[in-house]
Amino acid sequence: LLLFAQIDRQKTATETGSRKCRELFSAMEAIAPPLDNQARPNDQFLQPPVTPKVFALDIGGSLAKLAYERTYRYKRSVPQIEECLEFIRENILQADGADASQRGDMTGGGAYRFKDLITRTLGVELNKEDEMECLIRGCVFMLRNIPDELFYYDKHATPAHVFVSNCLVDTFPFLLVNIGSGVSILKVESPTSYSRVGGTSIGGGTFWGIGSMLSGGDFDQLLRLADQGDHRKVDMLVRDIYGGDYAALGLHADVIASSFGLAARSPEQPRCLADAIKSLLITVSNNIGQLACLYAKQHNLTRILFGGFFIRGHGLTMEVSSDSLSLVHTAHLGELKNYI
Amino acid sequence: LLLFAQIDRQKTATETGSRKCRELFSAMEAIAPPLDNQARPNDQFLQPPVTPKVFALDIGGSLAKLAYERTYRYKRSVPQIEECLEFIRENILQADGADASQRGDMTGGGAYRFKDLITRTLGVELNKEDEMECLIRGCVFMLRNIPDELFYYDKHATPAHVFVSNCLVDTFPFLLVNIGSGVSILKVESPTSYSRVGGTSIGGGTFWGIGSMLSGGDFDQLLRLADQGDHRKVDMLVRDIYGGDYAALGLHADVIASSFGLAARSPEQPRCLADAIKSLLITVSNNIGQLACLYAKQHNLTRILFGGFFIRGHGLTMEVSSDSLSLVHTAHLGELKNYI
Repeated sequence: LLLFAQIDRQKTATETGSRKCRELFSAMEAIAPPLDNQARPNDQFLQPPVTPKVFALDIGGSLAKLAYERTYRYKRSVPQIEECLEFIRENILQADGADASQRGDMTGGGAYRFKDLITRTLGVELNKEDEMECLIRGCVFMLRNIPDELFYYDKHATPAHVFVSNCLVDTFPFLLVNIGSGVSILKVESPTSYSRVGGTSIGGGTFWGIGSMLSGGDFDQLLRLADQGDHRKVDMLVRDIYGGDYAALGLHADVIASSFGLAARSPEQPRCLADAIKSLLITVSNNIGQLACLYAKQHNLTRILFGGFFIRGHGLTMEVSSDSLSLVHTAHLGELKNYI
Repeated sequence: LLLFAQIDRQKTATETGSRKCRELFSAMEAIAPPLDNQARPNDQFLQPPVTPKVFALDIGGSLAKLAYERTYRYKRSVPQIEECLEFIRENILQADGADASQRGDMTGGGAYRFKDLITRTLGVELNKEDEMECLIRGCVFMLRNIPDELFYYDKHATPAHVFVSNCLVDTFPFLLVNIGSGVSILKVESPTSYSRVGGTSIGGGTFWGIGSMLSGGDFDQLLRLADQGDHRKVDMLVRDIYGGDYAALGLHADVIASSFGLAARSPEQPRCLADAIKSLLITVSNNIGQLACLYAKQHNLTRILFGGFFIRGHGLTMEVSSDSLSLVHTAHLGELKNYI
């Protein structure tokens, strides 16, 4: 069971990019009635903001994400932050004639790190919101307002995204796993009661970082490369050690015993880059899934929702995560809360 | 608190290799009285074997480890398994005039995978032992018989290995984390009661595999490279995102937010290999430490012992693991049980 606004019932996860983003925001424009509107008529999350915001900016570790004018999204890597701020100044503030301090909010660590640069470029200090609070508010907004947000990923189904509607009332409590450059894991008991219970530094930045050192590709090139690879040529499976199953422990021959273990065994052998990148994606995704399960058990939670830019509708990532979990969620939650 | 026979009170972890191995086996020859001999006078682990074994062989995913004649050890990578078997035939069996089936045992997945090759080369079928059972028996033997086996690693102390004696009686139950090519995590309640409760494919083979793809070095070259590197040039710290602490979550500026995250942020920037290898070692070690903590909590265990060839007395590996745990153990347990 889970949620993901970028995919509809009829489409597979292979379609991403700006068209899907426009669809997402079109869906937001025609906002569906909140699923549990009856139950919480005065909920703060459903009230329109006093002053509608023109733009919202989320500057994370690797990416700066901008949402503006309800329809458009803009993304730049963090080293291009100046270009991003110039874009806001020229295309949003000057066109709108707006006062940035009234019309824009920001979140993410970059809101603090680049505070002076932002103030200098936009000519005014922007309001800063805590990123965990934004994350939860964005997530709750999506859960309540976007139809077909909740699905699970079943690699044997066609399409693989199996949607489940009207599940919100039973959604709390859940574990929210936000996969950015690193991973934060939050226990969410209600829209206003949550805590960060754990995390891991092995996240999207690790896949991107090691992947780019191995291949030189950017994030989406790496994902495409992973689709073409065969991880069994790089990973050491149980069969590579035992010649078959390790029956005494119930470990099937195909279980990965050591990620990149074959690259270690015969390092001089030439490797296909796609195989290595696929192995890397599986390594990172499996580890996040395993940690999420352990934290969920520790906190007696049975629902795990995944979000963050690392997943972005990529089939393999979801397949590997759901091998552990049968639950996947992803959305761009941070800047969304600022926007609404 | 913990155990590690390859390091004595006066020496640092930098001394490894054959001299240390000889010291280990010399110590075994003059076996110390079992610490809890009084409590368990008829324990099977303290009885001498009916027929003393001449050699014991443990063929894992990456390495074949051989112990023979109480003093010598021999190690080859798995692709060199034929050379290893020839060594046994020429230097042990022919010199000793022994029947291999009576004088040698073997364990590890390779005992199954290379069964035919072993039988053909040695002219006889060797007895196979389950590797988890060997692991536990070797570990218990070390705990009971080797003085100064138990220590904790404190990077601020000189030497960093702080030994604690006579702790065995209170050692059970504990979590045993065996770091080979992959990682197995066992709950050990007594010498004869244990179960594999978890593991991870991110182990020594992952460090060796990714490391060799990045640098071309072998395992020990990689460890030396890691000693020279600065992971902060490759890892994204909280300060790289926030410009300082993320105070609201209590995350210090120096905490690693995303392993290899800076390599992702500016992939075109030339990287020092040593920095990347150090980051890789920290990534793998931290993750094992975190998983070990989570499994220990899940099973209500307060003691975690680390073993396996990945650690091999390397200071950084132990420092990083003990940042999470304050407990480190390592020894070559698999072939040891076969040997005794």
